Amino acid sequence: MATAFVPSTTLRLRPYSTLRCLSFYPKNLTKPYPVFPPLIRRSPISPRRFFSSVISGALHSGERTKSELAEKQKGQMGSKVGEFRKKLKIVDVKGGPDEGLDRVGLMIVVAGWVRTLRAQSSVTFIEVNDGSCLSNMQCVMTSDAEGYDQVKSGLITTGASIWIQGNVVPSQGSKQKVELKVNKIVLVGKSDPSYPIQKKRVSREFLRTKAHLRPRTNTFGAVARVRNALAYATHKFFQENGFIWISSPIITASDCEGAGEQFCVTTLIPSSREAVESPVDAIPKTKDGLIDWSQMIEPELAFADLKDDMACATAYLHILNLWGQPIGGAGLGCQQTVFSLEIFDNFSGCMVQRGFSLLVKWGCDLQSEHERYLTEEAFGGCPVIVSDYPKEIKAFYMRQNDDGRTVAAMDMLVPRIGELIGGSQREERLEYLEGRLDELKLNRDTYWWYLDLRHYGSVPHAGFGLGFERLVQFATGVENIRDAIPFPRTPGSAEF
Amino acid sequence: MATAFVPSTTLRLRPYSTLRCLSFYPKNLTKPYPVFPPLIRRSPISPRRFFSSVISGALHSGERTKSELAEKQKGQMGSKVGEFRKKLKIVDVKGGPDEGLDRVGLMIVVAGWVRTLRAQSSVTFIEVNDGSCLSNMQCVMTSDAEGYDQVKSGLITTGASIWIQGNVVPSQGSKQKVELKVNKIVLVGKSDPSYPIQKKRVSREFLRTKAHLRPRTNTFGAVARVRNALAYATHKFFQENGFIWISSPIITASDCEGAGEQFCVTTLIPSSREAVESPVDAIPKTKDGLIDWSQMIEPELAFADLKDDMACATAYLHILNLWGQPIGGAGLGCQQTVFSLEIFDNFSGCMVQRGFSLLVKWGCDLQSEHERYLTEEAFGGCPVIVSDYPKEIKAFYMRQNDDGRTVAAMDMLVPRIGELIGGSQREERLEYLEGRLDELKLNRDTYWWYLDLRHYGSVPHAGFGLGFERLVQFATGVENIRDAIPFPRTPGSAEF
Repeated sequence: MATAFVPSTTLRLRPYSTLRCLSFYPKNLTKPYPVFPPLIRRSPISPRRFFSSVISGALHSGERTKSELAEKQKGQMGSKVGEFRKKLKIVDVKGGPDEGLDRVGLMIVVAGWVRTLRAQSSVTFIEVNDGSCLSNMQCVMTSDAEGYDQVKSGLITTGASIWIQGNVVPSQGSKQKVELKVNKIVLVGKSDPSYPIQKKRVSREFLRTKAHLRPRTNTFGAVARVRNALAYATHKFFQENGFIWISSPIITASDCEGAGEQFCVTTLIPSSREAVESPVDAIPKTKDGLIDWSQMIEPELAFADLKDDMACATAYLHILNLWGQPIGGAGLGCQQTVFSLEIFDNFSGCMVQRGFSLLVKWGCDLQSEHERYLTEEAFGGCPVIVSDYPKEIKAFYMRQNDDGRTVAAMDMLVPRIGELIGGSQREERLEYLEGRLDELKLNRDTYWWYLDLRHYGSVPHAGFGLGFERLVQFATGVENIRDAIPFPRTPGSAEF
Repeated sequence: MATAFVPSTTLRLRPYSTLRCLSFYPKNLTKPYPVFPPLIRRSPISPRRFFSSVISGALHSGERTKSELAEKQKGQMGSKVGEFRKKLKIVDVKGGPDEGLDRVGLMIVVAGWVRTLRAQSSVTFIEVNDGSCLSNMQCVMTSDAEGYDQVKSGLITTGASIWIQGNVVPSQGSKQKVELKVNKIVLVGKSDPSYPIQKKRVSREFLRTKAHLRPRTNTFGAVARVRNALAYATHKFFQENGFIWISSPIITASDCEGAGEQFCVTTLIPSSREAVESPVDAIPKTKDGLIDWSQMIEPELAFADLKDDMACATAYLHILNLWGQPIGGAGLGCQQTVFSLEIFDNFSGCMVQRGFSLLVKWGCDLQSEHERYLTEEAFGGCPVIVSDYPKEIKAFYMRQNDDGRTVAAMDMLVPRIGELIGGSQREERLEYLEGRLDELKLNRDTYWWYLDLRHYGSVPHAGFGLGFERLVQFATGVENIRDAIPFPRTPGSAEF
């Protein structure tokens, strides 16, 4: 069938005229699609239902009238693209207020993975999980169910994927309100006996070597769902507050933080083509040396100062807390407390009592132990905002306060994690910005566009960055940040 | 003031007991924040209002009773973090159905950038844009407005940022329903006369060298807003259909597409520390050689085949179309048409009539000119899905059809752009997958985890990838994909 496209007829297929009947365009519309759509123009057509058609089988070429062709095509191409429907998942059944009792009597299909199978004398219990929630569907079957032979022959093991049809019935057990009385079971994919995630608990270290399978455990499944809920809540919050999402590049020729640790991204084209070097950048890294790919949550507010910045960060974290169930009620709320570093001059004693390995001195950054002391002990487990840091320990672009020695920076500290958010009002005044660059011996030319913005209608503005992985870590309680990331990357580790 | 934290007193500050009065926790809660929150537990506390307190000024250390301390702190730390409120923007005023007439009489503040200024004998018109929509706010002022001297002295020029307070009044002009009668104007940031975006049209090529300023033009501001709306619609669609967002790494040691063009990310740590090489990856690139950072829209559907995949892609694009206004009514709708590559065997003539520079032959991939012909001409400007490609031109992981020579792959083509979406059912059968790896001389060991997934409960699954930049290009009508990206990156260009 390796036929070339050789001219054979003069047919010019114009299926539009024939297929239009399947769409809901107004009859008087001569062109169904504006080929060069104008920018920001409202569609003259009100929302309409959507139909699609599938062309299958062969067309016969040759001269014929449009209407003949239309009839031909209608006959041969008339089947539709299937409608896309959200599938019923276990969370849809069991996640409601009555935990599934409203679906009693319904016949449903559950497709998922076997967590456990217990065969009793007359009845077999299979716990199935489909990834939609922590809860399994308990499936109860007797020997008269279609496909029971697969259970009997030992094919349905932990880790296997199955398709089960049955009726929702009230459960006899105390662990769930409903269960599935199985009519039919189909093994979709068997699971080798070497399946590494058996019922007994396996260590997180071990699971890091099985990153492709660990979402099937309770913990990592939950972390994935919390992560997802936090990400969506983030988008929703900023959209609803008038922010515009911009995907900014993580590769830049400028060293944003002056941190000095730089990456070089190099295009290595194999074989004969020359290697092309592309620019140096400053990919953000976490304290643990992980490449922090997901610092994207970096809102910037125009016509705003540090107080607006704090208020925004606080409202954002507060909103996350309101998304009660999916996030797991980790309790991000509680009052935030803001204080200036100045306060250390006056109640320093309270911190030194602790015997920190590093003393806090004016001009030194807070260490993790200080941050945790502040939020976990001094402020009784509340998030705390520390503001107005010495300018020497902060980035060049932060706005200088009138005292000449501090900048309008703020960090939000939370228990267990320490710094979750770091933000600042940015320096909008050209002369101050240039002054800082010079002090830090940074080349003005490299930052030409950043300075340029101060030439043309500069405005007070502020922003913050949130470490999304830390947020996930905070919300889920996982101890190691590697376990908050689906496929963590460290130098030398990029297997998956 | 570089005071060290030296022990001076035995004070252990416990502000929680004093600050709790500001929060809405139940009185009987002894700990306001669960330090190690359990996973997936509903908060026992119903949604509560949020209060924050600012500690400012100095605390005096020393022994005192808790209640004394509480009173002291209440007095000195009692101010709150400001409430975060969405700011009124021009789109909020003018974007409603009556285009602002409902706000007539209100006094509002507009903060934004001057587009134009026209001084007439008795009245001055300033067009201000705040980036929230295409439309400017026409601000009308006479010499009695506070700050008028700044206008008179020529400080308020195109590109300057200003703060204007005034009353919404019906407009005399025909271009808008309302305008602002100015009471007060404040210059926030002046604009140098060299401001490159003057009223006369500047070329897109020129603007690419001014990526930090081009969002202030009508076109690029609109592109940014469309881009934002498309991204949010994408998140919303997939969330509402039960998908879980996973941030997968773009750095991997495996060559996913077998394309061979690889990047190497190298950590270059300056000064004395050693350079650490980290893994080779396969960063996706567009046909134009742009690094395609934003291929993240890559849904995967479990328990799904190619038809489900097509249905999902079609429903997704359809949803984008329903988001009428913000996306600009580009008309993504219209019926989708699916046909198999087989059809070429029968109506090849219709394509060859065109005199393509490359003939379409079985076993060759469609070129851009063929894709555009199909969607723009053969199907009258409708999106078209082409499916079941020869396996030789597709990636190893695509599922082999029963005919032994094609794979369950599909591409959605749209006018002007060509391929917008590419998807496939994935090969879930271990023996077929291994066979393809061997055929392509790919090392099985490299793909150990991908094969592993076929050992433990493999399921039919499908997915697609959408080039987000192309979607933006398609929805906005910009000709060059570089103009659909805020800060495009090409080898050798990473200035911003």
